[in-house]
Amino acid sequence: MAATRLFSTIVLCLLLLSSSTTAKKIPSRRREPCKQMVLYFHDIIYNGKNAKNATSAIVGAPAWGNKTILAGQNHFGNIVVFDDPITLDNNLHSNPVGRAQGFYLYDRKDYFTAWLGFSFFFNSTNWHRGTLTFAGADPLNKTRDISVIGGTGDFFMARGIATLMTDAVEGEVYFRLQVDIKLYECW
Amino acid sequence: MAATRLFSTIVLCLLLLSSSTTAKKIPSRRREPCKQMVLYFHDIIYNGKNAKNATSAIVGAPAWGNKTILAGQNHFGNIVVFDDPITLDNNLHSNPVGRAQGFYLYDRKDYFTAWLGFSFFFNSTNWHRGTLTFAGADPLNKTRDISVIGGTGDFFMARGIATLMTDAVEGEVYFRLQVDIKLYECW
Amino acid sequence: MAATRLFSTIVLCLLLLSSSTTAKKIPSRRREPCKQMVLYFHDIIYNGKNAKNATSAIVGAPAWGNKTILAGQNHFGNIVVFDDPITLDNNLHSNPVGRAQGFYLYDRKDYFTAWLGFSFFFNSTNWHRGTLTFAGADPLNKTRDISVIGGTGDFFMARGIATLMTDAVEGEVYFRLQVDIKLYECW
Repeated sequence: MAATRLFSTIVLCLLLLSSSTTAKKIPSRRREPCKQMVLYFHDIIYNGKNAKNATSAIVGAPAWGNKTILAGQNHFGNIVVFDDPITLDNNLHSNPVGRAQGFYLYDRKDYFTAWLGFSFFFNSTNWHRGTLTFAGADPLNKTRDISVIGGTGDFFMARGIATLMTDAVEGEVYFRLQVDIKLYECW
Repeated sequence: MAATRLFSTIVLCLLLLSSSTTAKKIPSRRREPCKQMVLYFHDIIYNGKNAKNATSAIVGAPAWGNKTILAGQNHFGNIVVFDDPITLDNNLHSNPVGRAQGFYLYDRKDYFTAWLGFSFFFNSTNWHRGTLTFAGADPLNKTRDISVIGGTGDFFMARGIATLMTDAVEGEVYFRLQVDIKLYECW
Repeated sequence: MAATRLFSTIVLCLLLLSSSTTAKKIPSRRREPCKQMVLYFHDIIYNGKNAKNATSAIVGAPAWGNKTILAGQNHFGNIVVFDDPITLDNNLHSNPVGRAQGFYLYDRKDYFTAWLGFSFFFNSTNWHRGTLTFAGADPLNKTRDISVIGGTGDFFMARGIATLMTDAVEGEVYFRLQVDIKLYECW
């Protein structure tokens, strides 16, 4: 009798334990990244004179703008298409490990804000192969978070957060972004 | 002997129970939102005369279009960049809780359809801080669903569905969208 | 005494077993699709003469481009908006099961690469109703993977990978893409 009571207790305990673990699992997803990396990309905007070095170009402009100078009113309405080298450090001339490809647009009249849609495309024998795709609003604060909305290849089905930081700006032609990528879904 | 047989039975039961729970868990994700909210945003398109109030501007147009009037053929080919106030009710003059930032484009000649890529950017002390990013086709039916593809800050790693409803239209200058956001992945 | 020791062993075993299963579950998500389908879409670019048949139009161009001919330098800077029929086989004249709607842009000067943001919009009584939304870099290799970043309706909350293959190209006016969609998150 004592033995069966003990059984019942164990069974109950285990059931409770198992159900509580299951119940907790969904809300308590860990906020620790399963993969993290810091990369840089370098954007040289076409200004009518730098066709050879430019890595990006204005392709959309508002009624009051044109395509060789970013528009007035904080560039509101400019769409820029880019294909920028990605490096492991902040040196434009380091060997690129991939290309940042996509677009950004300036979306606010009274101060700078942007919206970004782009991918990191890696095709490197000694780094990674595959893509990460990003989208989000960029308030151009010191640091700002956008979403990693998908991945392929080495980053199959990845999701996460990318923290952007403007690392350097030179006039209206060159800027460099530091991207701290934290993936929270890895397959 | 009876005791050990009982043990085996319990162990077997528990194993079966545990494995069946595990197997079921993946297909049976609940379709109840973990967070829901209704918001409005207000779009005032630049038409050459309303520079001060406009919150959006045509920045891409097809060969037959221009940038102060939406193009013929159901605006096919127009890209509009916006930075619109978000309010908790349908009043344009209510205190905004954030900004809707991004773009939409009209993609069909024979009737109205659009495609949207944008974020809700919240930076409010008494509402939320963070972003939600949306993408999807907008057939401009009475209600239509687009995807919530990512989030940051208070909406860390969120995913879900947003149901859009055009709440008001005034000529070709102002429209208001009601957005019913249902998140199904919350962290 | 023997009985209680046995109990303890069982309990321990079960606990270990349960915790190891839990720990394993996150990394070992299965890479087998929960849904797979192959579709085709057909893009006829407006060239100034084919207004009636065209399904897409150039709406953004760099300073050196225009909107009836894709720009030099590998079309770098062109943004194309499209609303293309989707078919179950590779015949342009088959009954469409939906529309591919969104945009692509050419983002590289020295060879062809593109970036895509679009949705498959299905509104068919005998096929599916709902949307799938895609984004990603397209290096225009023989096959290339982009991300399925969201879904609605029959594809509620879907995520996955789409493998693109250019199935036919006719001059600079018509191309056909084969899209092999593999969903790894189904709800």
